[in-house]
Amino acid sequence: MAIFYRENAFFMFTLAIIGATGAVGREFISILEKTSFTGRLLFFSRQEDRIVFRGKEYPIKVLCENNLPKCDLAIFCTEEGVSRKYIPLFRSSHIDVIDLSSAYRLDPQVPLIIPEINSRLLDGHQGLIASPNCVVTLMLLAVAPMVDELDVEKIIVTTYQSASGAGEKAMQSLLEESLEFFKTGKRQPGFFPHPYAFNLFLHDSQREGETYNSEELKIIQETRKILSKPNLIVSPTCVRVPVLRAHSLSIHLTCKRKVDITQATNILKKSAGIQYQPSQAVTPLEVSGKEKVLCGRLRTDFCDPYSLEMWVIGDQLLKGAALNAWQIAQHCIKASLVSR
Amino acid sequence: MAIFYRENAFFMFTLAIIGATGAVGREFISILEKTSFTGRLLFFSRQEDRIVFRGKEYPIKVLCENNLPKCDLAIFCTEEGVSRKYIPLFRSSHIDVIDLSSAYRLDPQVPLIIPEINSRLLDGHQGLIASPNCVVTLMLLAVAPMVDELDVEKIIVTTYQSASGAGEKAMQSLLEESLEFFKTGKRQPGFFPHPYAFNLFLHDSQREGETYNSEELKIIQETRKILSKPNLIVSPTCVRVPVLRAHSLSIHLTCKRKVDITQATNILKKSAGIQYQPSQAVTPLEVSGKEKVLCGRLRTDFCDPYSLEMWVIGDQLLKGAALNAWQIAQHCIKASLVSR
Repeated sequence: MAIFYRENAFFMFTLAIIGATGAVGREFISILEKTSFTGRLLFFSRQEDRIVFRGKEYPIKVLCENNLPKCDLAIFCTEEGVSRKYIPLFRSSHIDVIDLSSAYRLDPQVPLIIPEINSRLLDGHQGLIASPNCVVTLMLLAVAPMVDELDVEKIIVTTYQSASGAGEKAMQSLLEESLEFFKTGKRQPGFFPHPYAFNLFLHDSQREGETYNSEELKIIQETRKILSKPNLIVSPTCVRVPVLRAHSLSIHLTCKRKVDITQATNILKKSAGIQYQPSQAVTPLEVSGKEKVLCGRLRTDFCDPYSLEMWVIGDQLLKGAALNAWQIAQHCIKASLVSR
Repeated sequence: MAIFYRENAFFMFTLAIIGATGAVGREFISILEKTSFTGRLLFFSRQEDRIVFRGKEYPIKVLCENNLPKCDLAIFCTEEGVSRKYIPLFRSSHIDVIDLSSAYRLDPQVPLIIPEINSRLLDGHQGLIASPNCVVTLMLLAVAPMVDELDVEKIIVTTYQSASGAGEKAMQSLLEESLEFFKTGKRQPGFFPHPYAFNLFLHDSQREGETYNSEELKIIQETRKILSKPNLIVSPTCVRVPVLRAHSLSIHLTCKRKVDITQATNILKKSAGIQYQPSQAVTPLEVSGKEKVLCGRLRTDFCDPYSLEMWVIGDQLLKGAALNAWQIAQHCIKASLVSR
């Protein structure tokens, strides 16, 4: 029976958060606490635990294949393997799913959504929606509005990815390894295969073929899918740096015609989700905890009038993951309540 | 009176090291200790001090405009201002100079030398030779041999520059700020205008115009000078990362024709001063203290057959500065002894 959507209609809705104790899951819950969502909440993780939400304690349960939660929407803040195992079961039970892992992002049946860019695709979703790789989300907020208007033919992106991108344990490892260096003068690998204290390395994701790692291939493939440009040239180089939180991106666009910097600046100023800050002073520390993605330096290439460069920083746990998923969830909740 | 050069003829030569207590000066002296140089040594710095060289103590003096040292060659491991003040005085006294600062690098009368690439220009020097910016040296060791052979038309370089690039105080500040974060949870700026502990920022050098900083302009101008290609497109983005020592560079070359990866690999394997290490595992920590510059991942662009990408790491204090200067000094010493 259909009812009209009301702002406080959230209470009729049950939301399950899978992976509630991971870095992204915790950010999702933290975002949710500040919203007007008043529906029922179910929390799941690897181990039983308790969680406090708006001052009230809730149980964290372990997901069981034979006893799926009764809910309207499940947010999978999980790794690919967990998503691949459980999402088909949820879908069989007609539970809508938003997946933050890479498991289904390239499935042609699954819309890959950055709401500021392609929320129109949400109308036709078939119960499963994917949220993109964090670098893709941060990059495309700045770049997507330019692609057609500036005739962009190539995106070269070089990343400075923080510990938070690999989760809670990676952040702890960076701190512990650094402390160990102060105590002993030694640097040993912890969470990652390389020492991380005052050091950096090419992105630790699995290499596919000899030369690209899976993070880089995701950036190529997901960017092409979101922009509906299967032949766009995307050249990513992904690097893990000893920064606690927020990813920084150096982006170089080459265009088919000369870049008009005024036009580019105006596009950026109007971009949803982007805060344009012409000063160079922005750093990941300042962006940590911020919902907006900051573009700190937009410039035409000193030597090449066909190119445009920008410096983009975003909190990968927020807009790069949890916030993007919550934006998608809002669409789903509203649509679901309206159609009941 | 001309004599023939003999390997042990160094003892006839007096070498002055200006800036002997800075990070680069100390590396230069450390390199010198391991060589067969047996000439006379004079050390200068901002303050009087003592230094131990091969077990023997030497005085460190303060440079005086009215009483220049009597020497054959002076190595200026100094900042631009010191070089600009004293080098003209040394030249008036017919003392040969190798300058590591940026003061005279773009002077058409001054050869800008990376010995592996353009040592031929040393023959015609007029008493002053400049050693390039550290990023330029590390980058060109890998890139210069490819420029003509692969028809390179554009070099895009994105840097991960360590604390050592800004000297001893910057390295100390990184460690002190990190310790302070462990003690108080706070991150405050120290040596740099931005907090450095577990944080990063666009290169701290002075901005020239609104969008480029002087480090980036040096990379453009010095690269063009060394390659004798005044119109080559060079697009640098320089970033300071919280790494103690050794600079990492992500380099993207676009060429006028399709890249043959076998040809590119063969060029790299033959490049003097480069150690090609196809594994991705190389990190700044492993390269610290190494004379060779490592190229850790050479690949054709996944999407663009006209592009080639590489990951280059080098110890900025060694080949990026002190070692390059010592290589130039060897040429000068030999030439000077031969011509006496």
